[in-house]
Amino acid sequence: MKQITYNKKTFFEKYSQMTRSIKGLEGAGEWKTLEKMLPNFKGKRVLDLGCGFGWHCQYTIEHGAVSVVGIDISEKMLAVAKQKTSKEIKYICESIENAKFPKNSFDVVISSLAFHYLKSFNDIVKNVSMWLVKNGEFVFSVEHPVFTAYGTQDWYYDSDGKILHFPVDNYFYEGKREAIFLGEKVQKYHRTLTTYINSLLQAGFEITGVTEPQPDKTKLETVKGMKDELRRPMMLIVSATKKIKTKK
Amino acid sequence: MKQITYNKKTFFEKYSQMTRSIKGLEGAGEWKTLEKMLPNFKGKRVLDLGCGFGWHCQYTIEHGAVSVVGIDISEKMLAVAKQKTSKEIKYICESIENAKFPKNSFDVVISSLAFHYLKSFNDIVKNVSMWLVKNGEFVFSVEHPVFTAYGTQDWYYDSDGKILHFPVDNYFYEGKREAIFLGEKVQKYHRTLTTYINSLLQAGFEITGVTEPQPDKTKLETVKGMKDELRRPMMLIVSATKKIKTKK
Repeated sequence: MKQITYNKKTFFEKYSQMTRSIKGLEGAGEWKTLEKMLPNFKGKRVLDLGCGFGWHCQYTIEHGAVSVVGIDISEKMLAVAKQKTSKEIKYICESIENAKFPKNSFDVVISSLAFHYLKSFNDIVKNVSMWLVKNGEFVFSVEHPVFTAYGTQDWYYDSDGKILHFPVDNYFYEGKREAIFLGEKVQKYHRTLTTYINSLLQAGFEITGVTEPQPDKTKLETVKGMKDELRRPMMLIVSATKKIKTKK
Repeated sequence: MKQITYNKKTFFEKYSQMTRSIKGLEGAGEWKTLEKMLPNFKGKRVLDLGCGFGWHCQYTIEHGAVSVVGIDISEKMLAVAKQKTSKEIKYICESIENAKFPKNSFDVVISSLAFHYLKSFNDIVKNVSMWLVKNGEFVFSVEHPVFTAYGTQDWYYDSDGKILHFPVDNYFYEGKREAIFLGEKVQKYHRTLTTYINSLLQAGFEITGVTEPQPDKTKLETVKGMKDELRRPMMLIVSATKKIKTKK
């Protein structure tokens, strides 16, 4: 297998050129679906896990959040976020796994397309549950288990390069996968739908929404390849409410 | 495409020879997972939608249900059920779509692998919600959206007949699919995970479990093809509690 070297600079530059990076929330295909699943932010203390360029942090501030903390492991992304978004937002350069906050620090925790880079979803859920107050809200998007199972995250083509279907394999073998994203080798973690939902239920969350976002209808005819996104689910968005009290 | 004629007699006979038909619950790969998700039946009034040979009805009676109604569209299956299971069970020959019961008639509604034969899941959920008392339990298994999306429900093979992967296609196009089951053409309905979960949430159910059953570990090495079932999800089991009161 050809070894592809991960080049941080190139990758960051390429990522910065993606529609979702330039246009912000409106450039993200799943945003309209995610927005509908977000809670009311008025007067809320918000945490964004894997905040990237800070678009979601900015949104919550504009919708009434009293405080917003965004954490991300990428210094470069946070540098852009600090420039482009409200000074009220507190950005912390830290991995999601190593983040530490006092119990009951937040009313809402959000995360956009970050958790499939982390080994343990259970650990995330335990921490989020501890950081949230009772009746606190947790909304996150991840790559769909159908999309992460096989590994390459590419269609299966015929000999003429025409899409035949999307391949699923090794579904119940959770763990590392290697995909090519923007021409670079990226490591992700596959886990089943069962793990996503039952980890939340076991940690005392009530599920309030489970949605597989579909492409925006206005883009189906105008954006190349968009119609094919009706052939496979690529993302999963889950909203949940913490129904138990954090133990002192 | 070759037209395969649906032969009721042949199909019934073939179905009757399946391990799950002969051995009952223990012969069904998903039973151990489903059993864990079932509620306590003591003193409960139970309805089984698509009861087939009555194995689940019998289980609930043996576990303390005070009354059990099983409905199925197949007269032949019900004839076997009446012979093999407890006389206390009331069997009704009726389609799930046309079943009618008074409001608040049941404490528990169960269904095993029946709903993917029905066009509308929303209609089922509305009825079940009406028939259940507040805090009533609803547990059902269906074929997994990954399994129903493409249609043929078969693996994708290489030219030597070796399994390459499982194909997913047309995921967001819900509706009719035709698969070959026991050599006969069978019509099923594909719907997304979003539809299954959000129909329940919108009808006032709280989700208590979402599990993709895995093959029994003891059968992985001994039963031919069983190990391949770790490569794709075939079934989805959902448990939910009705949290609202039926309107008078």
